[in-house]
Amino acid sequence: MIEFSDDVLLAMTPWVRRTRFVAFDFDGVFTDNAVYVDQDGRETVRCSRWEGFGLQALRDRGVLLAVISTEANPVVGARCAKLRLDCHQGVEDKPTVLRARCAEAGIALAETAFVGNDANDRGCLEIVGFPIVVADAHPSVASLGRYRTKTPGGHGAVREICDLFVAVWNR
Amino acid sequence: MIEFSDDVLLAMTPWVRRTRFVAFDFDGVFTDNAVYVDQDGRETVRCSRWEGFGLQALRDRGVLLAVISTEANPVVGARCAKLRLDCHQGVEDKPTVLRARCAEAGIALAETAFVGNDANDRGCLEIVGFPIVVADAHPSVASLGRYRTKTPGGHGAVREICDLFVAVWNR
Amino acid sequence: MIEFSDDVLLAMTPWVRRTRFVAFDFDGVFTDNAVYVDQDGRETVRCSRWEGFGLQALRDRGVLLAVISTEANPVVGARCAKLRLDCHQGVEDKPTVLRARCAEAGIALAETAFVGNDANDRGCLEIVGFPIVVADAHPSVASLGRYRTKTPGGHGAVREICDLFVAVWNR
Amino acid sequence: MIEFSDDVLLAMTPWVRRTRFVAFDFDGVFTDNAVYVDQDGRETVRCSRWEGFGLQALRDRGVLLAVISTEANPVVGARCAKLRLDCHQGVEDKPTVLRARCAEAGIALAETAFVGNDANDRGCLEIVGFPIVVADAHPSVASLGRYRTKTPGGHGAVREICDLFVAVWNR
Repeated sequence: MIEFSDDVLLAMTPWVRRTRFVAFDFDGVFTDNAVYVDQDGRETVRCSRWEGFGLQALRDRGVLLAVISTEANPVVGARCAKLRLDCHQGVEDKPTVLRARCAEAGIALAETAFVGNDANDRGCLEIVGFPIVVADAHPSVASLGRYRTKTPGGHGAVREICDLFVAVWNR
Repeated sequence: MIEFSDDVLLAMTPWVRRTRFVAFDFDGVFTDNAVYVDQDGRETVRCSRWEGFGLQALRDRGVLLAVISTEANPVVGARCAKLRLDCHQGVEDKPTVLRARCAEAGIALAETAFVGNDANDRGCLEIVGFPIVVADAHPSVASLGRYRTKTPGGHGAVREICDLFVAVWNR
Repeated sequence: MIEFSDDVLLAMTPWVRRTRFVAFDFDGVFTDNAVYVDQDGRETVRCSRWEGFGLQALRDRGVLLAVISTEANPVVGARCAKLRLDCHQGVEDKPTVLRARCAEAGIALAETAFVGNDANDRGCLEIVGFPIVVADAHPSVASLGRYRTKTPGGHGAVREICDLFVAVWNR
Repeated sequence: MIEFSDDVLLAMTPWVRRTRFVAFDFDGVFTDNAVYVDQDGRETVRCSRWEGFGLQALRDRGVLLAVISTEANPVVGARCAKLRLDCHQGVEDKPTVLRARCAEAGIALAETAFVGNDANDRGCLEIVGFPIVVADAHPSVASLGRYRTKTPGGHGAVREICDLFVAVWNR
């Protein structure tokens, strides 16, 4: 977890202030992109307890939150349930789901942030107002982020983003 | 695991010597703040075998030990049972539980240490005589510790604290 | 995940271009060579979600893919099933299986890549046209690779190899 | 995994050459000293696939192998069964078990190596001919090793020790 310099807060202010909806990829963002596989093919992922307080702070401020994941394994839904996150999984075409969710909520893409880490996040990162990538994002999308976390996925990257929002709001 | 310089031992002597009760947060202190989530939402945490001998050394000297955790998942209780630690979990208001435990045991807050890592530990860190934070504590509470471990949570931070107590006692 | 310098792409071009079949060891290549063992001896391994998109890119180009593993535990097959990889496990003599698979597919060893990390991969690394080792390969085989990944096994080494192929093809 | 300088091999030659029995602590040697605890208190440990080939090389040369562990959890036995290691667990007094095993096998303590990482390994490290500690051993025992691995426990420390023996024998 990091502290933000005033320069960073200043630079991020316009993007944070207009954001009313934050959508996240799951694997590589809430996790370190690892998957633990047992003898029966059952999957487990490694998430972080850092995230809870951060997501609550965004929710308290009225920011809409959602997860949009390509992965079909129920482990995604299991974690989202605990974090009380709106969960779209098994999604082949993420931008379509993101647009639909925005339309439903009456929020513009320009008021939306998307947090991703790999090639299948490109579509969403290119259309939102505030694209964010994690520290260890794939080189093919790393340059698309207006903010790149210092913390790798699964080790508190989501908390860092939430902390950034709170720090800008409190500035 | 580290060795302590004589300067550190000297500086910590007054705080260690008056401590009769050490209370710990669980996630991020006994663990690396990760949670492993399976397809059914069942949780597993990563703890350290370093802790056992350290906690026993404090117990042998008559120091009272307890865990006070916000997390409701039974994994906290499962680990505390193995380590034979008094366990308070699902706690929303940690300072109230800490004060009650102190009153019950006839120990003053000034004779109490609390080990934490995140925002919900602030209340306890601010009222005890010997506030301790782990190496990777959140920036919002990191400065509240009179001692900050060199070892990150879950990798032996608890053992480092116990070793510090033993090293001061043996000095 | 890394970006490739043009020097590396140039050097790798002949080997990548003639490769029609990529065979992989499993433990230490798809995993970090760790095995998680529970009280009943049941095994779990840590794989990476990075691999999926990479393997798909090779498959889309018509490259044949297979895993050849000495390990008998069903965890190997479980992961290969998810990644839709042809899986040979419990293999004592890897070169024989590799030769048989090549013969069956009508592919020469010179058109084959093998990715390994330990002593029992020596036989395959010595006979294929394009031997590849992971960043953390055992010193006894590390020098056998014409390419050595920058990424350690289980943290995306397979994706790095797939990305290398794609980058050479797109050059 | 490391390569050994000739200086190290020369220095280790007398100790390796007289060793006929290698006894290991389990947690922190075969594992990274972490324990994964689930909601029911069931334990899982993280071991390494590096160890198998190394232990086999020692066994092939006729070196006796055993694990002597204080931990009572069946996870120790589960891993030893897979590695076909003689397993003594739930041991409070390790030196007594080690002496008994030596007597039984007709091997002197001077012909025995012991590999440990924490305070409860002191007794064995002090009586054997070839005491070995892992890279991340506790400071209270780290100086007792005539050899200290470069690799931390659970990440191939056992393999490094086996490789050292093989390298000395082949010198």
